[in-house]
Amino acid sequence: MEKREVSIGLLGVGTVGTGVAKILLNQAELLEHRTGISFRLKSALDLDWSRDRGVDLSSVRCVTSADEILDDPEIDIVVETIGGCDPAYQYILRALNNSKHVVTANKALIATKGRELFSAANASNTDILFEASVGGGIPIVKGLREGLVANRILNIYGIVNGTSNYILTRMHQDGLEFEDALREAQDRGFAEADPTLDISGEDAAHKLVILASIAASKMVDLSDIYTEGIAGVTKLDVDFAKSFGYTIKLLAICRMGDGEMDLRVHPTLVPDSHLLASVSHELNAVFVEGDSVGKTMFYGPGAGQLPTASAIISDIVDLARDIQLRANSGYRTRTIDPFAHPTVKPVKSVSSRFYLRLYTYDAPGILARISGILGAHEISISSVVQLETHVHDNYVPLVILTHSAREDQMERALAEITSLEVILPDYLRLRLFQ
Amino acid sequence: MEKREVSIGLLGVGTVGTGVAKILLNQAELLEHRTGISFRLKSALDLDWSRDRGVDLSSVRCVTSADEILDDPEIDIVVETIGGCDPAYQYILRALNNSKHVVTANKALIATKGRELFSAANASNTDILFEASVGGGIPIVKGLREGLVANRILNIYGIVNGTSNYILTRMHQDGLEFEDALREAQDRGFAEADPTLDISGEDAAHKLVILASIAASKMVDLSDIYTEGIAGVTKLDVDFAKSFGYTIKLLAICRMGDGEMDLRVHPTLVPDSHLLASVSHELNAVFVEGDSVGKTMFYGPGAGQLPTASAIISDIVDLARDIQLRANSGYRTRTIDPFAHPTVKPVKSVSSRFYLRLYTYDAPGILARISGILGAHEISISSVVQLETHVHDNYVPLVILTHSAREDQMERALAEITSLEVILPDYLRLRLFQ
Repeated sequence: MEKREVSIGLLGVGTVGTGVAKILLNQAELLEHRTGISFRLKSALDLDWSRDRGVDLSSVRCVTSADEILDDPEIDIVVETIGGCDPAYQYILRALNNSKHVVTANKALIATKGRELFSAANASNTDILFEASVGGGIPIVKGLREGLVANRILNIYGIVNGTSNYILTRMHQDGLEFEDALREAQDRGFAEADPTLDISGEDAAHKLVILASIAASKMVDLSDIYTEGIAGVTKLDVDFAKSFGYTIKLLAICRMGDGEMDLRVHPTLVPDSHLLASVSHELNAVFVEGDSVGKTMFYGPGAGQLPTASAIISDIVDLARDIQLRANSGYRTRTIDPFAHPTVKPVKSVSSRFYLRLYTYDAPGILARISGILGAHEISISSVVQLETHVHDNYVPLVILTHSAREDQMERALAEITSLEVILPDYLRLRLFQ
Repeated sequence: MEKREVSIGLLGVGTVGTGVAKILLNQAELLEHRTGISFRLKSALDLDWSRDRGVDLSSVRCVTSADEILDDPEIDIVVETIGGCDPAYQYILRALNNSKHVVTANKALIATKGRELFSAANASNTDILFEASVGGGIPIVKGLREGLVANRILNIYGIVNGTSNYILTRMHQDGLEFEDALREAQDRGFAEADPTLDISGEDAAHKLVILASIAASKMVDLSDIYTEGIAGVTKLDVDFAKSFGYTIKLLAICRMGDGEMDLRVHPTLVPDSHLLASVSHELNAVFVEGDSVGKTMFYGPGAGQLPTASAIISDIVDLARDIQLRANSGYRTRTIDPFAHPTVKPVKSVSSRFYLRLYTYDAPGILARISGILGAHEISISSVVQLETHVHDNYVPLVILTHSAREDQMERALAEITSLEVILPDYLRLRLFQ
């Protein structure tokens, strides 16, 4: 007996939840035509039902208590679009324990509570899907988990934080200072009033947990990821990078070594010839290398009401298919083993090419001292540029690109260099795309 | 009762078939770990079993008669990697009629016999999947059909012929003439000895039939597609385009109008700022606009043994999942209605901006005559460049970019212009990306 109707309960009718309601209600005919399944948005939870959301919810039970969704035996799929950890986490756990499938866009929750959520889903043979949690509308989770299922994933490089990418793009293309680009991003709705989560790289690290866990089929911990944000990048650095033929991008990086994963989020100098350098403004892209497929890239909007809802609906349709064939198999979630933990390479033993920007006192012999220190730590220089522009009295910007060196070597060399009395404490070390 | 083993029969062990065997045999553990399903390559068909294919086939029944696969009740999924129409078409029909699922990379067959194949699959509640038929290893069929299921597809722009893209890239980036770039592509294995199918645009048209049919959920006919190849594009045109800030790409275009589909394959001037302009050499990309998701792009290798096999394996895994849940539902194939036919906009009523390259006699008043003819057909000029370089005695190249005009207006204007005695018969009309 095929179940031709699937009932959905929606937790949270804010921006994204409203988008989900819009598509389920306004595109009902399209979805039924494409799938042969009728998608019924039965109930929606919110605290404020007075607000006009631009969608006719008269066919939906608008409730103010989550129990009416979580304990309703008719509801097959619970969609969580509340965000944050509490009460979203408790609601999702209850839904899974009540044998309901769950769809969520909540990257912070998957990144920090994935282990608990996945094992709860496994225990009740349900699925928890999260396509919208990385790359907004881009079907990257599906692409990685299903489209590239035949591949050992070798490398992932993601531009997965739209705020950072918008700021860096405006600095690169239009010469804005960091603060001005941030303020503009806030004015245009691409950055939060408190942008810390985006600027610090933490949001990108959340998304990297998800991508890397899929790639490894094991649960990565947020603490496994070395994270630097874009706050230290100045217009001067963007311009120097540009003059060398690079564009600075905040990348979420997952590289598979000999049984060890290298997991990092940091601003990176990407060669202009690489497709990732062309991903601009608030857009996202995930570059994936697999052992069979080679190099692929998935590009699109990383946020927004309808793009995010588009991804959520694709999860809902997948679950509805499974329910139609036979409910509660939970095989999709089982592709990540919540109790296995991958071996992660300590960042200090990772090798990269480096970009160093220092301010040095304008006097003879200083470059010789710096290159002497680098050489003593077995770091060789590939390019040096010193500008004549004086800043801070008699100091000038000096930029060095190095050949490949280990993080710990660079760390030690930098400690020595920055302790020189002729170097200002304001310096920046970035890494080159490899 | 879950079926934990799925048996596969492989028709044709050439380049792609060998890739499929390699992944099924060498990555068996990875696939079983990820899916909980054991994939057994039971039998393979080929006429020549003496050749070393670089893969150990000792666990596989190597047969020379298709009956041993098509009539074997143990085989769940038949993979067709023979190519061409005969006998692939008959084999696939028999497999479907025998209630086996089918996976194929055969774009020409889907494009020309899709209607018959899909209805045969529907009749036996089986699926025929074809991820590898467009964009090689890129999961674009899955992305479009599942990842973007919530979207009405508005536009598709595909770089889906690697041979053409390789040739155009070498002309653009390295200044090669068409013939030299083609010869190099042949030497490097990116073009066939007889490159007609690629150069003529027909291969791209096959792929557009598939993409457009998914977008429309209805079967598009190959004859619906207006097709021009790249053979007329010279280095001079590539250089002119470059000077205007454009890169010439062979695009497969599907635009959804008011209930009418605009379906075309032709070389197109793509602005350098567009991501599609950065897709170079033999690589493929499909740019998709959906009403909810906005603009997305899927990028990767469009051909090759392992990329193509990667896509085929993803289809095999999807079918194995369905078999595990409950065999023979056939819902994936039902997403395209084989008996519905979309309304296609006649190309003569399509509007574009045009690029015209003429050779005109170097004498006064000729530009006035040409612009007079264009004006009489309500076509307005946006840029004109005339070079001083003389070719063919006293003729000079003249390039005109127009504002938007209808195809039939341009057709009539061109008939008048090229009948002028001061214009050489060698001219080129291209369209700009819109």
